[in-house]
Amino acid sequence: MLKLFYAVGTCALASHIALEEAGARYEAVRLDFRANDQRNADYLAINPKGRVPALVTGRGILTETPAILAFVAQSFPQARLAPLDDPFAFAQVQAFNSYLCSTVHVAHAHRVRGYRWVDADDAAAIAAMRRKVPQSVAECFDLIEREMLAGPWVMGKDYTVCDPYLFTLAQWMEADGVDPARFPRVNGHLGRMSERPAVKRALEQEVSPAGDSPARS
Amino acid sequence: MLKLFYAVGTCALASHIALEEAGARYEAVRLDFRANDQRNADYLAINPKGRVPALVTGRGILTETPAILAFVAQSFPQARLAPLDDPFAFAQVQAFNSYLCSTVHVAHAHRVRGYRWVDADDAAAIAAMRRKVPQSVAECFDLIEREMLAGPWVMGKDYTVCDPYLFTLAQWMEADGVDPARFPRVNGHLGRMSERPAVKRALEQEVSPAGDSPARS
Repeated sequence: MLKLFYAVGTCALASHIALEEAGARYEAVRLDFRANDQRNADYLAINPKGRVPALVTGRGILTETPAILAFVAQSFPQARLAPLDDPFAFAQVQAFNSYLCSTVHVAHAHRVRGYRWVDADDAAAIAAMRRKVPQSVAECFDLIEREMLAGPWVMGKDYTVCDPYLFTLAQWMEADGVDPARFPRVNGHLGRMSERPAVKRALEQEVSPAGDSPARS
Repeated sequence: MLKLFYAVGTCALASHIALEEAGARYEAVRLDFRANDQRNADYLAINPKGRVPALVTGRGILTETPAILAFVAQSFPQARLAPLDDPFAFAQVQAFNSYLCSTVHVAHAHRVRGYRWVDADDAAAIAAMRRKVPQSVAECFDLIEREMLAGPWVMGKDYTVCDPYLFTLAQWMEADGVDPARFPRVNGHLGRMSERPAVKRALEQEVSPAGDSPARS
């Protein structure tokens, strides 16, 4: 059975939703970032990057959201989560997800993970990064709004693995100091996603106080 | 015919090499970043991100290196540039390339593109970012050296689209203040890549003074 390692409020939610959309049998294992679980030796043996998500499969372990999303789409073809038989359309999915991971998530990360790119003790540089986040994140969503979100779903009429990933990162916009109302198409997408049963199930699992390892079987 | 927009010294080299490895018919179109070609209206109509690479295909335009690499691998299956019939192995390829674009390239970019994440006039913050680059880039290559580069190629015995991408970013290490000799496996990979005819052809095209639009037919 697949096993997804996640932490609340992280980009792992995208993979979590995709597994729900696919109807996959999986176990979701919660890490507590406040307790620094992701740096425990046991977890570093699973993912030496010390990050989430990580997906344990029968063949081995996968990391990186775009790769996990493509894997879920290819492993559960009946769920039609990507245009699997069309290299150009599949590449468009990959391009969108690649933009989210390399540009949108990175812009956001400068608000709370600035220590990755400057000395953690350099308070002025950390603050300088935080100040730019509302602008750099808004520029990303402006481009998505104008050029990338076909509607109603990211790729147009067909729901794909781009949708849970966009939903996950767009949720962070407000805390990054960007008013979602500036981007009506992105905001509408957030609303449509919130109504999907798979999204509700994934969110409920992540916030559920039922235990450290909520499992769906 | 495919058309690749690139600039010298950028990550577009990975896609350029992949097209050569695939035996693709394509035209390579050079942008001059010093002249800010990437912000010209004509180019922004092709790629609103104002970045390279962009690949113009008969179906439309693709951006983002991991997506272009997957597209080349899927469009030229006879070149065997990815394990196309194995979702797990294909996801491993995607995971490696995703790490390069979201973490390695981003760490590097803080040396010369710090203005993306702080006010361009904040010289102290720009300098703080530059100072961290040797450490953050070295941490990436340390992980690649220890955990990710199976050898002789990234995925093991089979050459894939991971290899031109790693080659492209590993070339930047020295300018980032990291001695490649610290990473003998990555360094060995650089050497093996340099000897491949497709790599030589792509590099020659990029540095060729023959014209702005060197074409291979």
